[in-house]
Amino acid sequence: MEYLMKGYAMSTHPLEEILHPKSIAVVGASDTGRGGRFVTPLLEQGFKGEIYPVNPKYKVIAGLPAYPRVSAIPGSVDYVISSIPSNYVLDMIEDCGKKGVKGLHLFTARFSETGRKDAADLELEILRRARKYGLRIIGPNCMGVYYPKEGIAFIEGMPREPGKVALISQSGQVVGEIVGFSGQRGIRFSKAISYGNALDFNECDFLEYFAQDKETDLILMYIEGVRDGQRFPKALRQATAAKPVIVVKGGRGAAGNRATVSHTASMAGSQQIWEAVVRQAGAISLENLEDMTDLAVAFSFLPPAAGRNLAVIGGSGGSSVLAADQCEEAGLNVIPLPQDIRKKLKEAGNSIWDWIGNPADFSIAMGDLEAAFQIGTLMVEHPAFDAIMAFVHGPWGKIPEPFSVDEHIKQFVLSSSTNKPVIYVFQEPRRQGKEQEGLIEISKEIKEKLIEKKLALYPSIGRAARALSRMIGYYESRK
Amino acid sequence: MEYLMKGYAMSTHPLEEILHPKSIAVVGASDTGRGGRFVTPLLEQGFKGEIYPVNPKYKVIAGLPAYPRVSAIPGSVDYVISSIPSNYVLDMIEDCGKKGVKGLHLFTARFSETGRKDAADLELEILRRARKYGLRIIGPNCMGVYYPKEGIAFIEGMPREPGKVALISQSGQVVGEIVGFSGQRGIRFSKAISYGNALDFNECDFLEYFAQDKETDLILMYIEGVRDGQRFPKALRQATAAKPVIVVKGGRGAAGNRATVSHTASMAGSQQIWEAVVRQAGAISLENLEDMTDLAVAFSFLPPAAGRNLAVIGGSGGSSVLAADQCEEAGLNVIPLPQDIRKKLKEAGNSIWDWIGNPADFSIAMGDLEAAFQIGTLMVEHPAFDAIMAFVHGPWGKIPEPFSVDEHIKQFVLSSSTNKPVIYVFQEPRRQGKEQEGLIEISKEIKEKLIEKKLALYPSIGRAARALSRMIGYYESRK
Repeated sequence: MEYLMKGYAMSTHPLEEILHPKSIAVVGASDTGRGGRFVTPLLEQGFKGEIYPVNPKYKVIAGLPAYPRVSAIPGSVDYVISSIPSNYVLDMIEDCGKKGVKGLHLFTARFSETGRKDAADLELEILRRARKYGLRIIGPNCMGVYYPKEGIAFIEGMPREPGKVALISQSGQVVGEIVGFSGQRGIRFSKAISYGNALDFNECDFLEYFAQDKETDLILMYIEGVRDGQRFPKALRQATAAKPVIVVKGGRGAAGNRATVSHTASMAGSQQIWEAVVRQAGAISLENLEDMTDLAVAFSFLPPAAGRNLAVIGGSGGSSVLAADQCEEAGLNVIPLPQDIRKKLKEAGNSIWDWIGNPADFSIAMGDLEAAFQIGTLMVEHPAFDAIMAFVHGPWGKIPEPFSVDEHIKQFVLSSSTNKPVIYVFQEPRRQGKEQEGLIEISKEIKEKLIEKKLALYPSIGRAARALSRMIGYYESRK
Repeated sequence: MEYLMKGYAMSTHPLEEILHPKSIAVVGASDTGRGGRFVTPLLEQGFKGEIYPVNPKYKVIAGLPAYPRVSAIPGSVDYVISSIPSNYVLDMIEDCGKKGVKGLHLFTARFSETGRKDAADLELEILRRARKYGLRIIGPNCMGVYYPKEGIAFIEGMPREPGKVALISQSGQVVGEIVGFSGQRGIRFSKAISYGNALDFNECDFLEYFAQDKETDLILMYIEGVRDGQRFPKALRQATAAKPVIVVKGGRGAAGNRATVSHTASMAGSQQIWEAVVRQAGAISLENLEDMTDLAVAFSFLPPAAGRNLAVIGGSGGSSVLAADQCEEAGLNVIPLPQDIRKKLKEAGNSIWDWIGNPADFSIAMGDLEAAFQIGTLMVEHPAFDAIMAFVHGPWGKIPEPFSVDEHIKQFVLSSSTNKPVIYVFQEPRRQGKEQEGLIEISKEIKEKLIEKKLALYPSIGRAARALSRMIGYYESRK
């Protein structure tokens, strides 16, 4: 932390210098397909600076004047996105250098990841030339930067609303997947950077940058191979000292290792050493992107829990039993219902006071919503419970008419006066064919409304339990 | 097997005698709510026999004449569904006995599962009285029988089409969940029975029955507590000798154990002993209903594999790398691309012959569908591969116009001349809000069409890999 505060208070991080361009040139833009790859996403995202499509074959691309080369652009150019073939890149770098470009994103691929020597040599030569001009490179073989606050995106349909989660990823496909799927669950991003072969800026630069980035509260990382093994442990440690870091490593086994070579020219390295470094740094290592999204949802929408004692509320029958099993297996304590809750229920004339337990199986309330609500409220407020898991579903059976999603939601949303984490499990409609047409629509609306309310919503008991347990484990380890 | 063939060839299983009723009386039917609980599902399912609603308060229920009690019904009654309160059940049993009823499904609950002595005593007295009349009981505290071929169902919206999968479950909620969610994935059922407290027929009876049932190829079981520990190991062994048996045990931990007591009055017993019995019998033990559904999909739609060598086709970038990792971690061998495939690709002028691998990351084909298709075909047909995992998704980016789902699907559906299992992973659209409205519709249609084609379709790499590996493990253990 000291390093971060001292180091970066004094000077600006090199990434910061290229992430606020006043103008962006897209070299190799065209009007085929979706009308100017990389140009359209900038327009859609509302980039406020100048956008210069560059391609000698066009006068106009996506409604903007096109230029034959970077040096032909009248104004100054801060940042260049390159999607031209690899054999034109050296020439373009000369052009960029003369123009005073600061940052270059090489979407251009087919370098070292092809496994061909000439391609790998070209990649190194590109780095040498860029260094000559002080031109910094993201990539090659990557999708580059998504920075909603600055109006920068690399595909269409990325949310314009910024958030507090950062994503560092060697794979552009992973950025699309994480931003997309976690976006559907309410998460928004400060920045997401796909960096491919990591020729210039590498994982250490990105970690150092996001560690000190005030726009970022949580760092997600997908990495296939570490480029700078000397710096990496320290960079990771500094990042985890500042905020939670969740890492998914691609290329853990033999086949994945081969795949990382042809994907981003990464040598995945020893999995044992990797795990040790990550553990010692205090980062959270997960195995797939679903788990990463699930945990990001927990960190984003839940307060820390004081302990592992869990109340499970509103399941029914077998799902309630299996919730108990899965929560315990995930490391949560599904403690018995406290006796003073039973006493209060008995005094209040609740007919299932001696039968209900934790998990509170609401099917045994046999439709007595008031009795169920009373039980739920007492459990949420009871100091024995540190966290709550609650089930949410659409209407069982026929849809009542009239049906109000807002009214329906009210019976599920719990609030405690003591700011405990409440994690929700959504039970999808289970009917088939035409029977469930209306239910699918309603379920979608229920989920969207719960997510708008910034609730932590999960598609299964197991995923909710593991995410909650991992989040609690993180806070325990920080004590 | 010998037992099965000899034993049941000679006489009819007691369950068989009650599962083909010519008439069903629903005692405690009413016209409130959904118009005759248990009556409407029978009507909807097209039950061909007589349906007699019984309730002294009504003349007509769901359009059918209602009777004040079972003995007042003019015709004979084979099977009775009871949803009256528990204190009326003894009287009803006398009535059923005199009427010659053979089978009684007690939806009626609040017996031993309440933990109250008087309720448990009443339950035992019910069994004594029923035995007096040779009346056999399913339940109490359960949803009873779903038997589409006979037009019997206990909730609305259960598929009318029969299949080859049987489900034995102590929880009616679990039947609804498994029949619903696996139904959405193309599975159809021979019979599903929710049996609750297992007062008369218990888990052993159901296992013995489905072991010899010619309508059943695969047995799924959700169990909270074994009632007949003496018979159980043998019954399970006999069932697994005849067909695959997948078991999920509810009440594995302390909290789940408490929950099974209040749910179906089951003592969950020692988890160690349970695991040993299941393993020795050769049944497949899983921890949750998703895994059960996933494996049922594999058994239902995939041929056996000759080994564990897997080709992974059509992923892109990080998802391809993580597919390799997750498949290996699930116990599958993602072997390197055979050299003779490379040779053939080179000879055919395929530009990525030396770069493509297994997993075959189609993003490096850069939109060259022909090159990708050539690679996929060679991999599917190559004898080194025992099984295939393939990715399916809707259109990336904007939806082409015109768009044909049938045409779109063609590029993903692989077929081998050698009947290898091909397992599909569907990648949901990852956009947000209005951007993805059309894509959600298209994705739904793609999934439905693939399921209609009886393909094994999974929502994630991890779930597909585990299901395939478990299925292969089962066939390995049978050798």
